[in-house]
Amino acid sequence: MIISTKHGTPQIELDKLVSSFEAQGVRVSVITGTDYTVMGLVGDTTRLDEKRIRANPYVDNVQRISEPYKLTNRLFHQEDSIIRVAGIPIGGQEKIVAIGGPCAVEGEAEIIEAARAVKGAGGHMLRGGAYKPRTSPYAFQGLGTEGILEMVKAREITGLPIVSELMSEERIDEFEEYVDLVQIGARNMQNFQLLKAVGRMNKPILLKRGLASTIEEWIMSAEYIMASGNPNVIFCERGIRTFEKYTRNTLDLSVVPILKRKSHLPVIIDPSHATGDWRYVESLSLAAIAAGADGLIIEVHQHPEAAWSDGNQSVRPERFKEILDKGRAIAQVIGRDL
Amino acid sequence: MIISTKHGTPQIELDKLVSSFEAQGVRVSVITGTDYTVMGLVGDTTRLDEKRIRANPYVDNVQRISEPYKLTNRLFHQEDSIIRVAGIPIGGQEKIVAIGGPCAVEGEAEIIEAARAVKGAGGHMLRGGAYKPRTSPYAFQGLGTEGILEMVKAREITGLPIVSELMSEERIDEFEEYVDLVQIGARNMQNFQLLKAVGRMNKPILLKRGLASTIEEWIMSAEYIMASGNPNVIFCERGIRTFEKYTRNTLDLSVVPILKRKSHLPVIIDPSHATGDWRYVESLSLAAIAAGADGLIIEVHQHPEAAWSDGNQSVRPERFKEILDKGRAIAQVIGRDL
Amino acid sequence: MIISTKHGTPQIELDKLVSSFEAQGVRVSVITGTDYTVMGLVGDTTRLDEKRIRANPYVDNVQRISEPYKLTNRLFHQEDSIIRVAGIPIGGQEKIVAIGGPCAVEGEAEIIEAARAVKGAGGHMLRGGAYKPRTSPYAFQGLGTEGILEMVKAREITGLPIVSELMSEERIDEFEEYVDLVQIGARNMQNFQLLKAVGRMNKPILLKRGLASTIEEWIMSAEYIMASGNPNVIFCERGIRTFEKYTRNTLDLSVVPILKRKSHLPVIIDPSHATGDWRYVESLSLAAIAAGADGLIIEVHQHPEAAWSDGNQSVRPERFKEILDKGRAIAQVIGRDL
Amino acid sequence: MIISTKHGTPQIELDKLVSSFEAQGVRVSVITGTDYTVMGLVGDTTRLDEKRIRANPYVDNVQRISEPYKLTNRLFHQEDSIIRVAGIPIGGQEKIVAIGGPCAVEGEAEIIEAARAVKGAGGHMLRGGAYKPRTSPYAFQGLGTEGILEMVKAREITGLPIVSELMSEERIDEFEEYVDLVQIGARNMQNFQLLKAVGRMNKPILLKRGLASTIEEWIMSAEYIMASGNPNVIFCERGIRTFEKYTRNTLDLSVVPILKRKSHLPVIIDPSHATGDWRYVESLSLAAIAAGADGLIIEVHQHPEAAWSDGNQSVRPERFKEILDKGRAIAQVIGRDL
Repeated sequence: MIISTKHGTPQIELDKLVSSFEAQGVRVSVITGTDYTVMGLVGDTTRLDEKRIRANPYVDNVQRISEPYKLTNRLFHQEDSIIRVAGIPIGGQEKIVAIGGPCAVEGEAEIIEAARAVKGAGGHMLRGGAYKPRTSPYAFQGLGTEGILEMVKAREITGLPIVSELMSEERIDEFEEYVDLVQIGARNMQNFQLLKAVGRMNKPILLKRGLASTIEEWIMSAEYIMASGNPNVIFCERGIRTFEKYTRNTLDLSVVPILKRKSHLPVIIDPSHATGDWRYVESLSLAAIAAGADGLIIEVHQHPEAAWSDGNQSVRPERFKEILDKGRAIAQVIGRDL
Repeated sequence: MIISTKHGTPQIELDKLVSSFEAQGVRVSVITGTDYTVMGLVGDTTRLDEKRIRANPYVDNVQRISEPYKLTNRLFHQEDSIIRVAGIPIGGQEKIVAIGGPCAVEGEAEIIEAARAVKGAGGHMLRGGAYKPRTSPYAFQGLGTEGILEMVKAREITGLPIVSELMSEERIDEFEEYVDLVQIGARNMQNFQLLKAVGRMNKPILLKRGLASTIEEWIMSAEYIMASGNPNVIFCERGIRTFEKYTRNTLDLSVVPILKRKSHLPVIIDPSHATGDWRYVESLSLAAIAAGADGLIIEVHQHPEAAWSDGNQSVRPERFKEILDKGRAIAQVIGRDL
Repeated sequence: MIISTKHGTPQIELDKLVSSFEAQGVRVSVITGTDYTVMGLVGDTTRLDEKRIRANPYVDNVQRISEPYKLTNRLFHQEDSIIRVAGIPIGGQEKIVAIGGPCAVEGEAEIIEAARAVKGAGGHMLRGGAYKPRTSPYAFQGLGTEGILEMVKAREITGLPIVSELMSEERIDEFEEYVDLVQIGARNMQNFQLLKAVGRMNKPILLKRGLASTIEEWIMSAEYIMASGNPNVIFCERGIRTFEKYTRNTLDLSVVPILKRKSHLPVIIDPSHATGDWRYVESLSLAAIAAGADGLIIEVHQHPEAAWSDGNQSVRPERFKEILDKGRAIAQVIGRDL
Repeated sequence: MIISTKHGTPQIELDKLVSSFEAQGVRVSVITGTDYTVMGLVGDTTRLDEKRIRANPYVDNVQRISEPYKLTNRLFHQEDSIIRVAGIPIGGQEKIVAIGGPCAVEGEAEIIEAARAVKGAGGHMLRGGAYKPRTSPYAFQGLGTEGILEMVKAREITGLPIVSELMSEERIDEFEEYVDLVQIGARNMQNFQLLKAVGRMNKPILLKRGLASTIEEWIMSAEYIMASGNPNVIFCERGIRTFEKYTRNTLDLSVVPILKRKSHLPVIIDPSHATGDWRYVESLSLAAIAAGADGLIIEVHQHPEAAWSDGNQSVRPERFKEILDKGRAIAQVIGRDL
């Protein structure tokens, strides 16, 4: 940790600062410049509170040299983590995983039909929302438990593991029992209470990136889950808010090489929510694979125009198959499979 | 609602669309342009699902003419709402309210001293965090129930109502019993589960704006609370995320005239969290009052350099008094008091 | 164009609006709703000034149905434009073009060496900055004419066409004479004066996207160039400003399918400036090709640690070759070549 | 300047770095941590190129301690600069200046009428655009020289100095001769060529903030002008791009206390362009004055609904007078006048 003090700080205040740091068990080296004095703190600085130091009226700036995360940090866990979802390995050099399905579960017959279509196209897991975060209290909020149980039926028939979003601690038992991969949505990425709660689950977590979150904040949210005891976290990029009006959000594929370097956890890309437009899904799915993503989560619907939610961003099963077929060929160029 | 269809949409598809809207009880007027056909829907369009219409492959664009909110909408509630917090009225032409106190409750003696200082400076309520949303799982997470009870002591001694942040449904009973104004933090602005839960409380809610939320999304979150039965919502602007590096966030004072026009609910400004720097608090507090805000919430600490959290953004009690004194004079220019 | 008027607009004002539109040669259909009246304008609305209509106190909203661009619009130019740069075709199903070279020209020997390395790795053109836009007036501003002439030498030796940034109208003659592909930098994307000036040049233009520009604004800047007489415009995505701190900017690959749909002009991707970090260049270059880009522009330097400018984002020639080799294989999966 | 190197950097590379810095005339103190080594550079580091240092493969991070600007920096120029525009002083404790007028000059009679109205309401200068930066090449681009000459007529009649935007070096002679305060628009804030050119003018410059610029970048653009020889720069905040849809841009009033602390130059606020809506102009004008701004620039039009450009954001002369009257009372609270 590097601390710079303001121009004209009296020597006695500098001395007080040094003593207070030393009292907290770190060594301090002082560099005296023309306009500023700089202190370099050496040792375990994780206990020091950056904000508290900043509050000292003589301190100008505080800079952490080390990353603020540990369990998620590749520095301390060099090999890729492989996360298993109902036996399917995700991450490392494993096969790229393809998750497909409707935005919202719409009924038993529909979700079974969807699951069969996803499986037929070469998909490995079924997605479907039973609890939907909606901006408006008047919009359809999902089928709830009924939707979860219908997905379970679809799993029984097709064997596809199921992925669904958890919005509340109240439903943790339900998800622990029925859902294979528990999604935390973008709007809850910094719902720290919920992160701690899923950190005590025995199921892997798919952690979506917040709409305006930095990658570091996102990793810190994964750190919350890991620090609460659950090491099985998968990142999911779903687009960030930008000024663009031609898409709903802007897909940020740079997260793939960055997360691979900073962390050992897998990363999956969701081009459907990012763009909000099925016409851009194929192009960006192939790009995600070429970039090195560990998986795709794509909205697939047999009849997009009749979908209850987000039909505009859903591709039909035939196109989903096409995407996976081309994606497989691209995966092979970079030494992966799908 | 205005729907435009794509160039070259067959007449039969246009007819199908019209029939489907009419079947949902709205009247449809059709305008045929050179390149596009436009449908104007008249009647109660709140039941129509915008996203579902957009999913129709022949639809190019859907535009809502009416605002998507009702209970919070000034159109349907012309007079200003006055929200009472432990008897203190907020909003309309009532006195501008001044809330002060530390970021985090740090102990009984400290919070009592803070409450006395806030009261002595002319403040009307005491703020203090007992549950702290922190980016890092390793950072101080607040004193919890102990902190709430210490604030209650401070209220007993000074008579100041207390304001604190609620992060979890689990703590609703505690807040219902002890806290006068229940804050929903920026990171939970779209934690819809929590919004519904506080919508069932009997206490007024201070709804902070999300870091990257639009004003419409913010109003929709207030709508969630009101739709769940709690009409006592106060907006609190605390800065939005921008590219700026000299401040933590960017205070958006344009929300004051905008919220006054779009909604009937009061709005309070938090310049401390917005800027993250006490040196900018006075200037922006006075600006907030001149803009027409119904209140200020300011971090006040006797010893900012020793604060456990956010000391850098806390002003000392003497400066808090100065801000309120100047603020009062400005309030009078625009026909208010403080 | 769709115009909605405010609740309670008197009939006489509605009539005045209708007459004023009809006087400008468009037909008006009126839809009367419960709370609003909506007017649909049919005919050539490009002459109508949106802002002027909005200034009418009874008008609530104005929405254009048609895109505001014409020459760049795929709607009126269905086939892909192929832009030739010194004989090399870019766009359509042509070979993907690879442009490499240093950020700044650093001397004759260096640029010749760079050109040879780029050519040896399979690159098709040489990039190099002679006029550098720098945030600080004290930073190195480029070698100017000397740098351009050194690039010309490198072209003579290797045959590679040269790409360089033009910052001022003053240098147009120089660029017309010497440079093969004239780059307009991100900070000048809305320097309308310069856009009009290069619209009168006989050289193709590489139009970089502004740091916070929407795709529509970017297309409108291309429209400026085309409307001034120069049809040879190539888009270049170089990252947009976001909240991210781990990269300089955020590369937006969704522009590839969007531009392909909205426009007929080619699009090239610059992963070096976008990320500011050579470690992310390979991953995002391959992603760009998979997404369907028509070319790559990559910073290549033999000794990145000795580069005068932006060494941190430069890849060495060997890695450049690797990227192109893998990129070629990916291109073939989607039916292109490199 | 503080440089941190990567974990595992060999001693020989550390030594090389130290020698290279010492060879450039600065002293280096080295702090050896557990995971990182940190170097503190003392002396004149302005000659060192940050980007070049970053390109060293062993360097992890580079942090400047001093601000990158000098001439604009309050550190080296403690007293407020007072900039005179045709004799009217702006800045320091001088009277707050009120600039009013139409977005675009629309004709001689109109601009004279506008000037009289501005003067009658208590305004001190006349604004008007003769060269308009427009997103579309098909939109009205301003009356050009004719518009400038019409403003000159209005000045002759009313005595109000005139403010107008310069978009091109070509017109510098015209502006030097006729215009009292030369505006550089938001889109040209980083048109470095133009900044250098106006740095050679003998007229004061009103430098608008770029739509997505940080305050530091804005100050650096002022530094360009000052470094080219023109010390008379006034900052003008006109809103930044955010995600908000209810206003055109978001006015950032925090720039007032920040610029006052970082620089000695005056700052003027433009609430009309920021919000794009006259209904929010009064509220934010009063807020700007309370925040400590040195002036306001407001769009005033006698017949907003007939304005050629931006009528929706123009206030009528009567309201302009009201704003100035209330603003004067607020100014007095903070010890200023208007």
